[in-house]
Amino acid sequence: MFDIVKSAHLAKQASLTVAQLSSHEKNALLLNIADAIVANGAMILAENNKDILAGKAKGLTDAMLDRLLLTEQRVQDIADAIREIARLEDPVGHIDNMVLRPNGMQVGKMRIPLGVIAMIYEARPNVTAEAAALCLKSGNAVILRGGSEAIHSNLAIAKCLHQVLAQADIDKNIITVIPDTRREVIEQLLRQRQSIDLVIPRGGEGLIRYVSENSQIPVIQHFKGVCHLFIDKYADTTKAINILLNGKTQRPSACNALETLLVHADIATSLMPKIAEALQVAQVKVHACQQSLPYFSHATLATEQDYQAEYLAAEIAIKIVDNFAQALAHIQCYSSDHTEIIVTQDTSRSQRFVRTINSSVVMVNASSRFSDGGELGLGSEIGISTSKLHAYGPMGLTALTTEKFVVIGDGQVRV
Amino acid sequence: MFDIVKSAHLAKQASLTVAQLSSHEKNALLLNIADAIVANGAMILAENNKDILAGKAKGLTDAMLDRLLLTEQRVQDIADAIREIARLEDPVGHIDNMVLRPNGMQVGKMRIPLGVIAMIYEARPNVTAEAAALCLKSGNAVILRGGSEAIHSNLAIAKCLHQVLAQADIDKNIITVIPDTRREVIEQLLRQRQSIDLVIPRGGEGLIRYVSENSQIPVIQHFKGVCHLFIDKYADTTKAINILLNGKTQRPSACNALETLLVHADIATSLMPKIAEALQVAQVKVHACQQSLPYFSHATLATEQDYQAEYLAAEIAIKIVDNFAQALAHIQCYSSDHTEIIVTQDTSRSQRFVRTINSSVVMVNASSRFSDGGELGLGSEIGISTSKLHAYGPMGLTALTTEKFVVIGDGQVRV
Repeated sequence: MFDIVKSAHLAKQASLTVAQLSSHEKNALLLNIADAIVANGAMILAENNKDILAGKAKGLTDAMLDRLLLTEQRVQDIADAIREIARLEDPVGHIDNMVLRPNGMQVGKMRIPLGVIAMIYEARPNVTAEAAALCLKSGNAVILRGGSEAIHSNLAIAKCLHQVLAQADIDKNIITVIPDTRREVIEQLLRQRQSIDLVIPRGGEGLIRYVSENSQIPVIQHFKGVCHLFIDKYADTTKAINILLNGKTQRPSACNALETLLVHADIATSLMPKIAEALQVAQVKVHACQQSLPYFSHATLATEQDYQAEYLAAEIAIKIVDNFAQALAHIQCYSSDHTEIIVTQDTSRSQRFVRTINSSVVMVNASSRFSDGGELGLGSEIGISTSKLHAYGPMGLTALTTEKFVVIGDGQVRV
Repeated sequence: MFDIVKSAHLAKQASLTVAQLSSHEKNALLLNIADAIVANGAMILAENNKDILAGKAKGLTDAMLDRLLLTEQRVQDIADAIREIARLEDPVGHIDNMVLRPNGMQVGKMRIPLGVIAMIYEARPNVTAEAAALCLKSGNAVILRGGSEAIHSNLAIAKCLHQVLAQADIDKNIITVIPDTRREVIEQLLRQRQSIDLVIPRGGEGLIRYVSENSQIPVIQHFKGVCHLFIDKYADTTKAINILLNGKTQRPSACNALETLLVHADIATSLMPKIAEALQVAQVKVHACQQSLPYFSHATLATEQDYQAEYLAAEIAIKIVDNFAQALAHIQCYSSDHTEIIVTQDTSRSQRFVRTINSSVVMVNASSRFSDGGELGLGSEIGISTSKLHAYGPMGLTALTTEKFVVIGDGQVRV
């Protein structure tokens, strides 16, 4: 079996090297990696084809095969994504402010890399390249453990990464791609808390639950996105319907798509017919509460399961709430801590919503589809955390760092 | 057995209440708690006496009995500490800056409570009151599980806390003091990841290791403080000796006391005799490397164990290093990620030290004894984290919060 204890130890050693690279050095490596991936495109596609053939033989679904598939364009896209990461601001070394203490010492906090990050993911081979690039840019060593379906593609990409590191004479252990796809390897990986600082699983709920329950290392959790839209009685109805349609239909398979709509009872009579029409045109299947059911011609009665559901499809749960407090209570009960939205023109009510709802992204009068690292201005995103430690919400480069205290004195001692 | 599943669930419910209290409301509760503790002083001391008698019968050491003991003065000190916490700035609701996105949306991050925090600690009953106060001030519900030695004292303090909550008609489950001191309770507590957001163990290495290995909930780890002082060849020798003596002797039992001294070889001939004299006067026992041994009259040869030791006593390991790089390498090898210091007048070398050493507190020309929440300006401290997630270094109120994204739009949808 692959020696994960040794690999993790070597990664920890290598993390000291990558932490000390300057932004210039890291950016040069990233641009060279992008070039190497394009230059080795034919090799990567040939290896990817082995995964595709094996996947077909194994009976993977078309959706899974599509996630697995690389094309010339997709290889180009991976290279572009890495060049984009090279352009992002490097958080490492940044000090927000230095405070002068009464005794004359200056105290500040400096951003530093976390150390070693382990990514455990499923079928998409682009994650191998992009996660490696984000970890490198933030000064971290990374251990990548992709799914068995993508193993040839992942190793082909790893070859490009290591080729660039070798040319620059940099410790290759700053990026480790685990070639062993057995589950025991994950189990062992999750016990290397002496070497690994953070585990980021990306994939289905089963994978994330398994990692969370078995890890001795901190885990970034993202279970699901049951995003709520609450249309308040003081809503602008045009904005409300635009935000509803955009959130539900622009990309229903995304975790930031809407799953539940709450409508204030005082606005229901005028608004519900418009909502019903809009959703019918957009061919969205509706699960409506008892009170809202009459407004729809083809809706089914919403059940407890509907309020918990992450449909990831053109399907929505709808509930009329008697008042503001009931909307808050419903969200607090069913929230997945991903994204919740209020549409209202009333500033007291928007403030109350923002203050009360502690999901990772809380919005006023905007589409849930903006709940994304790129859209919120973080640059590339390595994941979304729906647990409050250590990052919460979309995670950019900064979420891959921590802060140390820096104290600059001139001989001070404590009395 | 105490129903920890139910208690954790009630705490989670209650966390919604405490998260919404205003700073004024929280401060009023804290001042009332301080008053209640003073008013109930006689009852607390009587209950504490039961713990002391049981401790003596159990054969606890004098040091342990002293940690356990409450006096009128110590009860007063607890009340004062709580009043001090009331005076701290409330981090909840704070937004650092709102950025305007190209589409007109405003995006910022707002500080929010973590939710439910579990503290697991050993003999000191003051932790019960102070941890409850810090969690309340930062808007969190808290579950407190103190050691069996202090159970009567802890429950007496809990009575004061709950009395104040009852008078204010606030859900008493925002503060839970677990009355069951069996280890199985901790085991179960560490599995309540649906309800509890963070576990903070405070105590010996055994307790922290046990919690880290068995928790499904994120844990703040603080194993030990092996703090290094590196005296560079460009050091001001007066500052160097002052910082050495202060770090080693001002309070040797503290985790921010010095444990290892590294001296640059180029300055050794002139400096080591002064160091030897100063340490002899201060009656510090020395474990010296081969090269530095001749400077001391009573030193023993330093072993591998000495470089790993957290003496917590008037005892120090000393090593002469050939150059700057060797000092860095020694620290990176033996660091506990607590606090490391360089004494130098050379700005290039201080910058290099600060940039390279990624311990949680890195200092230039200042005593390790400043590595403390109060001294660094954080106000009261709930602990020190030597693991990089989610806080690193001394933890004040802010470390008990996280940030959610707040998006203020005016009808924006994604295209």
